[in-house]
Amino acid sequence: MFFYSDNTASACPEILAAIAAANEGFARSYGEDAWSARLNEVFGTFFGADLRAFPVITGTAANALSLATLASPYTMIFAHEQAHVFRDESGAPEFFSGGARLVPVPGEHGRITVKALDMALRMSAASLQPALLSITQGTEFGTVYRPAEIQALCALAHERGLEVHMDGARLANALAFLGCHPGDVTWRAGVDVLSFGATKNGALAAEAVVFFDRNLVLDFDLRRIRGGHLLSKSRYVSAQLLAYVESSVWRRNAQRANAGAARLAERAAEYLSHPVESNQLFLRLGATRKQALRDAGFEFCDWEASGPGEARFVVSWNQPESDIDALGAALSAL
Amino acid sequence: MFFYSDNTASACPEILAAIAAANEGFARSYGEDAWSARLNEVFGTFFGADLRAFPVITGTAANALSLATLASPYTMIFAHEQAHVFRDESGAPEFFSGGARLVPVPGEHGRITVKALDMALRMSAASLQPALLSITQGTEFGTVYRPAEIQALCALAHERGLEVHMDGARLANALAFLGCHPGDVTWRAGVDVLSFGATKNGALAAEAVVFFDRNLVLDFDLRRIRGGHLLSKSRYVSAQLLAYVESSVWRRNAQRANAGAARLAERAAEYLSHPVESNQLFLRLGATRKQALRDAGFEFCDWEASGPGEARFVVSWNQPESDIDALGAALSAL
Amino acid sequence: MFFYSDNTASACPEILAAIAAANEGFARSYGEDAWSARLNEVFGTFFGADLRAFPVITGTAANALSLATLASPYTMIFAHEQAHVFRDESGAPEFFSGGARLVPVPGEHGRITVKALDMALRMSAASLQPALLSITQGTEFGTVYRPAEIQALCALAHERGLEVHMDGARLANALAFLGCHPGDVTWRAGVDVLSFGATKNGALAAEAVVFFDRNLVLDFDLRRIRGGHLLSKSRYVSAQLLAYVESSVWRRNAQRANAGAARLAERAAEYLSHPVESNQLFLRLGATRKQALRDAGFEFCDWEASGPGEARFVVSWNQPESDIDALGAALSAL
Amino acid sequence: MFFYSDNTASACPEILAAIAAANEGFARSYGEDAWSARLNEVFGTFFGADLRAFPVITGTAANALSLATLASPYTMIFAHEQAHVFRDESGAPEFFSGGARLVPVPGEHGRITVKALDMALRMSAASLQPALLSITQGTEFGTVYRPAEIQALCALAHERGLEVHMDGARLANALAFLGCHPGDVTWRAGVDVLSFGATKNGALAAEAVVFFDRNLVLDFDLRRIRGGHLLSKSRYVSAQLLAYVESSVWRRNAQRANAGAARLAERAAEYLSHPVESNQLFLRLGATRKQALRDAGFEFCDWEASGPGEARFVVSWNQPESDIDALGAALSAL
Repeated sequence: MFFYSDNTASACPEILAAIAAANEGFARSYGEDAWSARLNEVFGTFFGADLRAFPVITGTAANALSLATLASPYTMIFAHEQAHVFRDESGAPEFFSGGARLVPVPGEHGRITVKALDMALRMSAASLQPALLSITQGTEFGTVYRPAEIQALCALAHERGLEVHMDGARLANALAFLGCHPGDVTWRAGVDVLSFGATKNGALAAEAVVFFDRNLVLDFDLRRIRGGHLLSKSRYVSAQLLAYVESSVWRRNAQRANAGAARLAERAAEYLSHPVESNQLFLRLGATRKQALRDAGFEFCDWEASGPGEARFVVSWNQPESDIDALGAALSAL
Repeated sequence: MFFYSDNTASACPEILAAIAAANEGFARSYGEDAWSARLNEVFGTFFGADLRAFPVITGTAANALSLATLASPYTMIFAHEQAHVFRDESGAPEFFSGGARLVPVPGEHGRITVKALDMALRMSAASLQPALLSITQGTEFGTVYRPAEIQALCALAHERGLEVHMDGARLANALAFLGCHPGDVTWRAGVDVLSFGATKNGALAAEAVVFFDRNLVLDFDLRRIRGGHLLSKSRYVSAQLLAYVESSVWRRNAQRANAGAARLAERAAEYLSHPVESNQLFLRLGATRKQALRDAGFEFCDWEASGPGEARFVVSWNQPESDIDALGAALSAL
Repeated sequence: MFFYSDNTASACPEILAAIAAANEGFARSYGEDAWSARLNEVFGTFFGADLRAFPVITGTAANALSLATLASPYTMIFAHEQAHVFRDESGAPEFFSGGARLVPVPGEHGRITVKALDMALRMSAASLQPALLSITQGTEFGTVYRPAEIQALCALAHERGLEVHMDGARLANALAFLGCHPGDVTWRAGVDVLSFGATKNGALAAEAVVFFDRNLVLDFDLRRIRGGHLLSKSRYVSAQLLAYVESSVWRRNAQRANAGAARLAERAAEYLSHPVESNQLFLRLGATRKQALRDAGFEFCDWEASGPGEARFVVSWNQPESDIDALGAALSAL
Repeated sequence: MFFYSDNTASACPEILAAIAAANEGFARSYGEDAWSARLNEVFGTFFGADLRAFPVITGTAANALSLATLASPYTMIFAHEQAHVFRDESGAPEFFSGGARLVPVPGEHGRITVKALDMALRMSAASLQPALLSITQGTEFGTVYRPAEIQALCALAHERGLEVHMDGARLANALAFLGCHPGDVTWRAGVDVLSFGATKNGALAAEAVVFFDRNLVLDFDLRRIRGGHLLSKSRYVSAQLLAYVESSVWRRNAQRANAGAARLAERAAEYLSHPVESNQLFLRLGATRKQALRDAGFEFCDWEASGPGEARFVVSWNQPESDIDALGAALSAL
């Protein structure tokens, strides 16, 4: 039973149907197709904003390309010390930006506070310029920033001359938890550019970079080609994004995954190291309990950054109810 | 009628079926899936070699990652002056390699000769080291290197200390034309690393980087993550590659496209600027004839690099016979 | 009275005489001169080791070039969180290395401990490889590592597969304090590559990169040209280095500066935030006292990283005794 | 007898005197000294323009930093195929710019023509943006652009959206030959940024980057630190530049070197492959004559790029008359 990551899940039927539907006849290549042409409008409606949206196929590409577009080589990008951009992308932001520096910011439950950001800004190297704040929504620890928290962070960032990037690899899960309008945690709160994730929540391979200010797009287009991230048959990525955003698929999948995690959280309350606000659980189990769960057939991730006994469980959009029941029972029985 | 590029074609049914078949249940992510696990063996059988094959999703990524793995920042990569890596990738090789230099080599019909390579090596900047030769098979002008030509180029390259990369975006078309074993124009002829293309010939988005010498893989893995080119749900790319290589799909699609181009070549013999050896035709039509064809509904590419009146027509794997008939008739009637 | 930095001092007479002596007739350029030819031998004698020494003209160049030679783009370089390479070089290590990451390590009085390094290694991003430890001797806070401390750090670093770089911008001051052999805090303790500073201690502009293991030189030569750091008339840098190393100039200058700092430390004991082991003093003075000193004509540096009231005073090799007396009196009178 | 390069000459007495004069007392570091503070004004007077001048210590640094300031990673820099930036700097422009591409332009006697530039622009890769033209004055072949030629090149470049950089490593020699005002071949002709060389013409190590449009300075300052090219004791470089520009030293040295070359040209007329317009001669001597000259004690450079028998002789500012007489006699006697 796969609780290792929501990346282990398959694509949902609507996504596959959209790909199949896009597979008719000829279409112009390199983003000149009819599906890609609709992205700005469809994402614009979704977020209630005049924006520009670009399809890519990995979250790392979405993050690195948007960070590099806004951060010159001699600048600093502030991110949570456990952020995906900081820990899990083999230095993609440094590579794409030509050597900008990621500055780790501490923060409980994966969230950066205004106070911590302010401190990090003041303590940072004077020989580099602060350029960007990158926050993750939902966070790497399964928690979710409230709109007011994002507003406050963006306000401080903008006041100090930084743009704000949001890594929204699990934005759908955050929106499902908050029940708010997608604009409330993004552009209305001050976010300038967003990595919009769909892959983890039921797409096959589809992410979008969304610029809420068209003036910030700058040379993104050229950087995307140069990074090998402009697909020749781009219709297939755009078709996934359209299906995901236009339908209720994003919400349905996220709600279902969140609900599964919530159910598990009840059974594992004593082990929780972070509030469960999306589809991830972090449990302080210790080596023995972890081994017992593995022996029982559960796959999950050691989360060594938080200590030797910590484990991460992720509920996928299509996690069988029986998996959740089984894991819940196993957790209760530990 | 789309003769603009084989990138405008859809994916073939076998590829879509393979994606659908891979869409069952959970699978480990980031290349740890069962499909990716079979790539070395399946490509090894195809090429008759002990090799390592890595899936990526664009030709630019395949090229840039393989070039960067073998070319340090202070080195030179020799490629045809009309090569895709040189002209059409917005400097991806320079980006991924950290500033290696592409040295353009002239050559009739898109092919580099031993003599031209020797001259380019001797004339090149002494303050940079020669590291790589990159050749394209089939070439950007629709021609195809014969095995002996590749052998001779590789022999000179190796003698001078260069590794050899092959951009095989249309390798299937070249193999279909030559009717030889895949190994004959690659590792047996001296090619060290190959960008193996499937997208142009019927895949949805699937390319592979193939190292014929395992010792050359070096840090490719890390560079792929860092470039944002390791897909979380990599099974879908690997499944395409398996379906493409294991079946006769690659040959059938390529033969059909080549045959269409050959048919058109007969009707346009007087305009041909290069021999038609794969699925591309280059015609010296002049502005008036080009406009006439466009008025008749044909989409094709101006090929300005070869002069103002030149046009490129590409026949896709699924080009309707009626398209080919119509274009043939229109060319005859010019 | 300049206590701002030892960079504000002029060059000492022996250095200027060496430059003048080198200014005779013609000499081969780009490092092929007779002065440069002696560097390996003269530094080898100084350190008691078989080494390779390369002249450059800034400490940033020495640091960035040596770090980049040993750290690939997808690796991590561990350094003290107040290290010059981390805070004061506008990201030169990231630039020269193609985006390697500097990982800040905390540590009292500017020194990294084995425990802190071990923790930093364990907490670092698994998606990047640890490549280098960089330590500063004497440290940015005027303290000095003891040989056994360096040995222990190098032992841990080597055990984990890291090479060790030493930023020796003020190595002479550290050696003067310790009274040990130059080899004892460098190669004998495990240091692999050294930025050997002379500029701060009486040279005009002269530093050396010293590789204690010839196999680590790798592509340093090419990186130096590519960075614009191979001087055409390199004899003038090498002549400075020879004069500095072969004579007792390095020791005399460093001893004198250290002695001045020690004298001041006695007068400012109550304000000291770090032990005074070389030619730098860090004083917790607070805003009022700082202003009083400035009003009295003393130039010094605010050291904001350690808190708002902190100030740094550096005694130069040729600091007039009267300056030291005046500052000592002023400090006593605060 | 050294005719290998003007880099083999020593520094002239006025330069050494300026360094000695600057070696008094303390001075603010990192460009905050009194000498550096005068550069804008003194260079402004020299060129008759409102400009900004920055000292560096190598020509490669001057070139690479100015090119990188104006050329983004995904752009092209057009330069003569024999330009120093293209052939002799180990890819420094690519390194500093983050992978911009140098496009070689052919041209007789080291000079680019409007026609050749136009052709190169039209033939260049559409996937990269043209950003800069770099011309060398005097050229790598000892010839000199006339003001009208520079005007025409700059006009075309600007019309197509490119800025113009001039590599003035031997600008003094060109000015001495032309007898024109320094502004006539630089900003008045349309040059935007200049690498102003002094080292080859009698300085110890001193070059300047001169921006004729203050708006183009952009992030040059940060790039200079990041490249390790901001000297801590910058007074010594600025003092050299001031002495060189404010006095008649630049003209006297250049005139003398040019006159020596002119004298030699008379004796070697039959072997000349390029007009002698500055202090360099290129002679088609063939292997036997080259060996004869070497046997007679003359050091010079093989210039293989122009063919196996070609040799370069450079007359330095302080070339002894007896050297010139001896070489002249030897050439006549060949």
